Amino acid sequence: MATHKLLLLPGDGIGPEVMREVEKIVGWFRKRGVGFETETDLVGGSAYDAHGASISEDAMKLAQAADAVLFGAVGGAKWDSVPYAVRPEAGLLRLRKDLGLFANLRPAICYPALADASSLKREVVEGLDIMIVRELTGGVYFGEPKEIVTLEDGSQRAVDTQIYHTHEVERIARVAFDLARKRRNKVSSAEKFNVMKTGVFWRQVVGRIHKNEFSDVELENVLADNCAMQLVRYPKQFDVIVTDNLFGDILSDIAAMLTGSLGMLPSASLGAEDPATGRRKALYEPVHGSAPDIAGKGLANPIAMIGSFGMALRYSFGLLDEADRLDRAIASVLASGTRTKDIAAPGANAVGTQDVGDAIVKEL
Amino acid sequence: MATHKLLLLPGDGIGPEVMREVEKIVGWFRKRGVGFETETDLVGGSAYDAHGASISEDAMKLAQAADAVLFGAVGGAKWDSVPYAVRPEAGLLRLRKDLGLFANLRPAICYPALADASSLKREVVEGLDIMIVRELTGGVYFGEPKEIVTLEDGSQRAVDTQIYHTHEVERIARVAFDLARKRRNKVSSAEKFNVMKTGVFWRQVVGRIHKNEFSDVELENVLADNCAMQLVRYPKQFDVIVTDNLFGDILSDIAAMLTGSLGMLPSASLGAEDPATGRRKALYEPVHGSAPDIAGKGLANPIAMIGSFGMALRYSFGLLDEADRLDRAIASVLASGTRTKDIAAPGANAVGTQDVGDAIVKEL
Ligand SMILES: CC(C)[C@H](C(=O)O)[C@@H](O)C(=O)O
Ligand SMILES: CC(C)[C@H](C(=O)O)[C@@H](O)C(=O)O
Repeated sequence: MATHKLLLLPGDGIGPEVMREVEKIVGWFRKRGVGFETETDLVGGSAYDAHGASISEDAMKLAQAADAVLFGAVGGAKWDSVPYAVRPEAGLLRLRKDLGLFANLRPAICYPALADASSLKREVVEGLDIMIVRELTGGVYFGEPKEIVTLEDGSQRAVDTQIYHTHEVERIARVAFDLARKRRNKVSSAEKFNVMKTGVFWRQVVGRIHKNEFSDVELENVLADNCAMQLVRYPKQFDVIVTDNLFGDILSDIAAMLTGSLGMLPSASLGAEDPATGRRKALYEPVHGSAPDIAGKGLANPIAMIGSFGMALRYSFGLLDEADRLDRAIASVLASGTRTKDIAAPGANAVGTQDVGDAIVKEL
Repeated sequence: MATHKLLLLPGDGIGPEVMREVEKIVGWFRKRGVGFETETDLVGGSAYDAHGASISEDAMKLAQAADAVLFGAVGGAKWDSVPYAVRPEAGLLRLRKDLGLFANLRPAICYPALADASSLKREVVEGLDIMIVRELTGGVYFGEPKEIVTLEDGSQRAVDTQIYHTHEVERIARVAFDLARKRRNKVSSAEKFNVMKTGVFWRQVVGRIHKNEFSDVELENVLADNCAMQLVRYPKQFDVIVTDNLFGDILSDIAAMLTGSLGMLPSASLGAEDPATGRRKALYEPVHGSAPDIAGKGLANPIAMIGSFGMALRYSFGLLDEADRLDRAIASVLASGTRTKDIAAPGANAVGTQDVGDAIVKEL
């Protein structure tokens, strides 16, 4: 029986407490004979506090060797003034870049039981099921120059650079079209081609891949600002949205917030398939952040983190039955009303982080 | 009696038909002795069709000489494949840049009568009144290099550059703090300081202006992705939001869409005050776009365009009584139920673009 190597990087804020619940689930599967080997390390502010870097070289080695990385969350006001190069987010960005995790899959699903938790009208979001495919290793996140320069007169100039290469846009487009084929067969590609050259380029390359390889899939080009509007107005018009790193950051957060289920949404960041082994590097993380305001209080909803492990079962280990089983367990716990404060029904008692994890294990 | 020089640039799509209604209002004020001199010219796709450029040199001269420019909307699928340098949007970008219109004020107001038109729950948006202050002449819209390069192996690389200088951030911050003092005294400054150097810089400069000149105003720093989320979750937490050109493009569209009043929202783009004359260049335009799908059908809501003229009365000409009078006329027409399709009450008959203009003139 194969052993799957998992690296757990709980990070900051509520990261550790939601990761603890995942460990219970991993433990349950292990007892039932699924071979998981886990290691745990620091990332983000907690790594900075321990050794002055937001991820250590040792942790990077573990990440490179792992079959999948489970990532909690990083950041918090506590580290707002640490040097830029070692800020908590740098650890996450390095993981994405060094592991080549170019494809970030962010499903935005509105669970019927939670539709009322949305700030949008029930009929606008009920049954919503969008997949945002965000390019994750290029664009303005990594382009150079990226600097603040002091000029002769003492004033300053800051610069960031958005760069995209043909192969970067091609491969993310393929991921989006592939996914659409398994869903409702529609891709909306978002950019600002009316203002940005990378937008013109994005539209050209996506259009070419569509024409040559995926002409059976419906493709729609949409301006990123209009896409944000349309997400608010009538989100069910979308199936798969593919977009660059920065627009993806914002659009996926909007989509997640629409659902009323922010504490429920997992994400997967995938690398290219190794042609020799057929395996791809992968990192799984909840869409929500480190929520320092509620950290350590046992209030956090662990379902996004547990669901991220479910995505790992599915995408990294091909354990589809196990993934389905976990999804069903989550669904029945939700249906039973065992919910954290963020998603508790009006008037119902909210339970703690651990209660949800325990209930899911019991349900399994 | 002073004469105010207005340049009307109706543009494309629904631009001309909503501008026609403004002309009626201008005509009414003129008859009552307010001195307006108007000229009209082409911009956007219609300018391209007429003379191969999205704004002519003559029109630029008129814009430079005008006391205020009223701008309709530009763009449409018809011009999706014209050369980048002469695409419809280039005319608008040139106006912004050459007139130095660095401060874009975009109010997002939810009219109580229209709260149900929002896709958000009534209680989330009712009474909403946010002002987005968007930097409009810098950032990724104008930074160089901005290009698509073909490499030796035949693949391509596209580049955009976001640049901000100290004085650019200082002056937009001052506009935001100034406005906040006349409102609810709170500024939220949005950037991605965890990823972008221009974000780090933005936060530093805004913080310095706050400390030195506006410490009586509350300042909050918020990540742009989180700001987008919070706009969806609980928009009433905001008063003034100040942000860069690209984030402002997206965040102001979200804010506008929340209100359910997209066809109602005006905007002002202002230049620096000339120290000698005390005057500033200005352009006023609706927040909505050219809506090619409904163009020419008499369905468009002219209120955003008429309200933009109202902002001109207020900000460019100091005609506060006239501006109030126009606002009151708009409000009573709305209350009377004379509304275009986008904002018609459920079951009520929608009227056409011209009917709304006529009703406002009558009300005046
Ligand atoms: C933490 C931060 C660097 C990150 C990003 O901007 O990508 C986060 O917002 C996300 O969306 O994963
Ligand atoms: C038309 C386009 C160039 C413009 C922009 O991106 O600024 C528009 O979206 C806006 O917000 O005014």
